[in-house]
Amino acid sequence: MKNLDLAIHFFIQIAVILAACRLVGIVARKLGQPQVVAEMIAGVCLGPSLFGLLAPEWQKLLFPWDSTQSTRDTSSYLFPASQLGLALYMFIVGMEFRMDIVRSHFRSSLMVSIAGMVTPFLLGAGLAYYLYHNSAMFPERTSLFEAMLFLGASMCITAFPMLARIIHFKGLTGTLMGTVAIGAGAIDDAAAWCLLAIVLASFDDNLLGALKSIGGGAFFVAVAYVVVGPLLRKTQERLLTKQGDLSESGLVIGLLFMALGAWFTDLLHLHAVFGAFVMGTVMPRGVVNRQLIERIQPLAVALLLPLFFTFSGLNTQIGLLNSGYLWLICLAVLLVAVLGKGVACWLAARASGLSQRESLGIGSLMNARGLMELIIINIGLQRGIISKELFATLVIMAVITTLMASPIFDWLVPKTESALPAD
Amino acid sequence: MKNLDLAIHFFIQIAVILAACRLVGIVARKLGQPQVVAEMIAGVCLGPSLFGLLAPEWQKLLFPWDSTQSTRDTSSYLFPASQLGLALYMFIVGMEFRMDIVRSHFRSSLMVSIAGMVTPFLLGAGLAYYLYHNSAMFPERTSLFEAMLFLGASMCITAFPMLARIIHFKGLTGTLMGTVAIGAGAIDDAAAWCLLAIVLASFDDNLLGALKSIGGGAFFVAVAYVVVGPLLRKTQERLLTKQGDLSESGLVIGLLFMALGAWFTDLLHLHAVFGAFVMGTVMPRGVVNRQLIERIQPLAVALLLPLFFTFSGLNTQIGLLNSGYLWLICLAVLLVAVLGKGVACWLAARASGLSQRESLGIGSLMNARGLMELIIINIGLQRGIISKELFATLVIMAVITTLMASPIFDWLVPKTESALPAD
Repeated sequence: MKNLDLAIHFFIQIAVILAACRLVGIVARKLGQPQVVAEMIAGVCLGPSLFGLLAPEWQKLLFPWDSTQSTRDTSSYLFPASQLGLALYMFIVGMEFRMDIVRSHFRSSLMVSIAGMVTPFLLGAGLAYYLYHNSAMFPERTSLFEAMLFLGASMCITAFPMLARIIHFKGLTGTLMGTVAIGAGAIDDAAAWCLLAIVLASFDDNLLGALKSIGGGAFFVAVAYVVVGPLLRKTQERLLTKQGDLSESGLVIGLLFMALGAWFTDLLHLHAVFGAFVMGTVMPRGVVNRQLIERIQPLAVALLLPLFFTFSGLNTQIGLLNSGYLWLICLAVLLVAVLGKGVACWLAARASGLSQRESLGIGSLMNARGLMELIIINIGLQRGIISKELFATLVIMAVITTLMASPIFDWLVPKTESALPAD
Repeated sequence: MKNLDLAIHFFIQIAVILAACRLVGIVARKLGQPQVVAEMIAGVCLGPSLFGLLAPEWQKLLFPWDSTQSTRDTSSYLFPASQLGLALYMFIVGMEFRMDIVRSHFRSSLMVSIAGMVTPFLLGAGLAYYLYHNSAMFPERTSLFEAMLFLGASMCITAFPMLARIIHFKGLTGTLMGTVAIGAGAIDDAAAWCLLAIVLASFDDNLLGALKSIGGGAFFVAVAYVVVGPLLRKTQERLLTKQGDLSESGLVIGLLFMALGAWFTDLLHLHAVFGAFVMGTVMPRGVVNRQLIERIQPLAVALLLPLFFTFSGLNTQIGLLNSGYLWLICLAVLLVAVLGKGVACWLAARASGLSQRESLGIGSLMNARGLMELIIINIGLQRGIISKELFATLVIMAVITTLMASPIFDWLVPKTESALPAD
């Protein structure tokens, strides 16, 4: 496609995506689901799993797709734009992140995150051991070690951006429950990406690559906290206008650091979301982070983030699960996911001394896999570590654990209780 | 390039573009030039004309570019993203557009726009006649009629988005001078795009195509004013929250119409900017358009619009002008551009009864060609209507007429006078 055609497609896609997200959103709201769940489902609906089944020619016309990723197609511009939307959102999540609460509840966050990492990893790796010997869910090239590591890591995933949006939607930002969940989710996801880096490195026979990712990530976090954060705090007066508002230069400088962080962690194969999130956490607190959020959030959430959800949906083919045995495996995957993450995090939160209600809330929130799961399993599919069938199975697990989060949360945690601030 | 590489490139490009625009912006501000001029120059500097001359390998590494537009490269995602930024900006310009002032000063707007269209067109067509017979500025395939039509149309261009930004930057939004200039600029640009459609159609031996563009454009404007506008005004309560603010759905619905308008006019080969602008003019006045602007503007202007300027700069090669004769032609082009547009608009404004100061201000603002010019001449280059040398000549004309606008305006129009409101 030539540039003009790319642009024409982009605009009509934006219109269709926005309309679909709103329509599904109206239904979702009636069912007590947040807008983010609607967008995730709208994305899957616009892909081959529904729109592509009902009207394949129209779907291809609207979202021309080249699976070899060599020519110019929808994905060549929707992917960068969707990653930008995701990074901006994670930057906002980082700016809303209250390190003070994580610190004051560090023990709880750490215990929840360890439980929410070790249990699903062990259960996932065990399931992979079984599937490796008893099914064709893994391609031949994949070794047992890689299969176990990959399925283990993909069970560890928390829907970090989705968790953040649900917490925001429920008005839990800054509460004890919300903060422990976000803190634990952040630690878990970081660990899962590190595991993924090891899997990818082992798949490439390249241990050095994995070490580079992990070492580079540690270096990045150190630079962000020791250099960028203090520097911005010291010079934050320069980011403001004479009236004390954030200046346009201030906004651009914030976006510049966001882009640098996203680029660097993408370069390390750790995914742009981490860089953007970390940069968000080091933005100066007060006028700067408040007004950065105010100015970035509307367009990022209303326009760019839905592109990310749609992009992920376009990669999903649920139709591949066409036998009873495959659905049985799907059930096993779902069970392992819920036991390993939701139940384990609930118990860990209890053990760390939190109340029953808060623990149940944290468990149900941590259990949502959302589209972060889709990212990791898309990488697995692309690199040939998992089969298309296991991919579709994991997509269903991601959708169901995400759909579960809100109703179970509402059922377990009465409203007045959940909205109490942390301190 | 695979998707991951596209995303990595996109983030580092964003960082470099933002940094470059800010650095050039610091210099520009000291010279009294608005940020938009800085971004235009930063774009040209990041392209082959400066960065590509100084460090060709680095430039290629940072902005991988496939001029055949077949593989995935920088332009496959930067073009759609830059068009989105431009459309969002034009949507804002449309929302800030005060039809009431244009109506009350319709005679002035119309006279200025006709003068700013007929004069440069005739002078441009005359220059094309001379160049066609006395130089190699037009490829052999181009007929005399097409050459005259194209150079005439490209002289008619007003830097509509840039005009709007300069007017905003100078605090002239809503003033008589600002509104007459925006109204005349809008009419002129629409006419120039219609002319371009005729040139392209004649080049394709397809008169029907040109009629379709023009008829479709009229149909679109009618639908926007007769259906979309009244419908939104009637239902605008539904776009608000209970507190009377614009709801997230309201924001999304506004963006949806923007995308539909941009798509439709792109489809008609009239360029997305018109659809987005027209949709902006029909958004309900009051809370809706004010809060749409507030929420869209920060990110669109700080992040997405610079992508458009850079994209245009990446297409520009000033180095092709390497002889005295070419520079002489360049001077002639510049003279024709200034006489045909700036001087003609000044005289027309005077003739319509505006004061000397207002007329001078309008003339100097209308004279800026900005990046709209770059768009139209890029299309001409791409389609083989003009040579690369004429292209570079027209780029220089666009840059100089744009650089001229601010200082000449400040010199001719004292500050207190220019900031007076229209009514």
